Amino acid sequence: MNNNKNQTFTCSGINSAIAILESKSLSVENIFLLKNGKAEKNKILKRTLIKHSVKYFDKNTFNKKFCSGKNQGIIVKFSGLLIQNEIPKFSDKGNICLLALDQIEDPQNLGQIIRTVECAGFDGIIYSKHSSVSLTNTVLQVSQGAFVNMKFYEVTNLRNQFKKLKNNNFWIVGLENSMQAKPWYSIKYDGNIVIVLGSEGKGIRQKVMESCDFIATIPMQGITNSLNVSAAASAIAFERLRQQFEQK
Amino acid sequence: MNNNKNQTFTCSGINSAIAILESKSLSVENIFLLKNGKAEKNKILKRTLIKHSVKYFDKNTFNKKFCSGKNQGIIVKFSGLLIQNEIPKFSDKGNICLLALDQIEDPQNLGQIIRTVECAGFDGIIYSKHSSVSLTNTVLQVSQGAFVNMKFYEVTNLRNQFKKLKNNNFWIVGLENSMQAKPWYSIKYDGNIVIVLGSEGKGIRQKVMESCDFIATIPMQGITNSLNVSAAASAIAFERLRQQFEQK
Repeated sequence: MNNNKNQTFTCSGINSAIAILESKSLSVENIFLLKNGKAEKNKILKRTLIKHSVKYFDKNTFNKKFCSGKNQGIIVKFSGLLIQNEIPKFSDKGNICLLALDQIEDPQNLGQIIRTVECAGFDGIIYSKHSSVSLTNTVLQVSQGAFVNMKFYEVTNLRNQFKKLKNNNFWIVGLENSMQAKPWYSIKYDGNIVIVLGSEGKGIRQKVMESCDFIATIPMQGITNSLNVSAAASAIAFERLRQQFEQK
Repeated sequence: MNNNKNQTFTCSGINSAIAILESKSLSVENIFLLKNGKAEKNKILKRTLIKHSVKYFDKNTFNKKFCSGKNQGIIVKFSGLLIQNEIPKFSDKGNICLLALDQIEDPQNLGQIIRTVECAGFDGIIYSKHSSVSLTNTVLQVSQGAFVNMKFYEVTNLRNQFKKLKNNNFWIVGLENSMQAKPWYSIKYDGNIVIVLGSEGKGIRQKVMESCDFIATIPMQGITNSLNVSAAASAIAFERLRQQFEQK
């Protein structure tokens, strides 16, 4: 990703389109609508589209132009500074929560995770530039517009970033499937915190794990023992929220 | 679904295939493998396949025969009593937990939910026969084999089932996006319990909601405010588990 320059994205789906059109920080470049499609019939979208110029296509042309599956009959091209390469020095709000993703490759998972942690009030998502999926159309569409209200930090080296964040009063918590780790609810998620999740197949890489201050685990109760990374994100994100509510 | 008779299913993906082949309650009818595909190269699968007869196909024929996307080069046809129409009278183990789904239509969501609640130690999933997705290939594949270790109850009327379950010492908890409801962590999930989730668009239907003993909510912290139903399932399933661990 070019250094903090304006970036161009393509995104499909009604909810994501509404979020983009309502955003003040993103510039809409093109809107493509399928005639008589689901999107054209959506009342909220209709209201949001009033101020924009729209290109209409019949079914044949639309499908030929945009073969991506679940687009609901709308494609939006837009630009904006969605992804940053530098994590800012956060002012001492004192309970900033960032999610760090170590080599998540599946766009469905990244999209779901964005949606979940936005609902749980997280402040940003850090991910490594290499071997990770970035903000593709599928990721943005699956996030159902939640990406508009999330900060993304694409970095070359997670460990270097963790070092800087630790100097900025952050604690780093890694989630791992391990007998030695502490149960996920016994960690205190107050203060500035980074929660680290690894890829499904491989988990968090050893070197990244060594940078963590705490290691948490969610003990599996079934026979399959394979929790999806977005389900794990949800479990830990709402555990943090529970602790915040119960402290009040 | 025919009344508790043997049912036939098709399922793709390596993890699901391994789970089916290792299961003692399911009968494998056919195994189709793509030559030089991901599945053929998988060592664990190779070991599991030894006792079975396999039909091999080259890429062209395989893709023509099985056009479904993420099959990883293996399709298994199998039969077994996966879905029941009657919820049994549970013996008084005292902490049975069932998930009830009111009109979940998206196969990705159902597959993810199966996987998540299996990991969280749930005892079964109840869903209404009408307007719900059943155990399609996509659902089974997304569940990554977790369906093999889960009980499914496909019923015509959720409310009637809740009535019976209440007589069997179950409490019914519905999850809803509502200011009036109690925060999800303030409900005690001990004893026999049914957790009810509604469809994403519409939530739990009014009549079903009226059968619930408690209504829980997960207060949204973001701007998007739209938590995916499988993420909500994860948050509530692991909150129950946390309570169980902390009681010990």
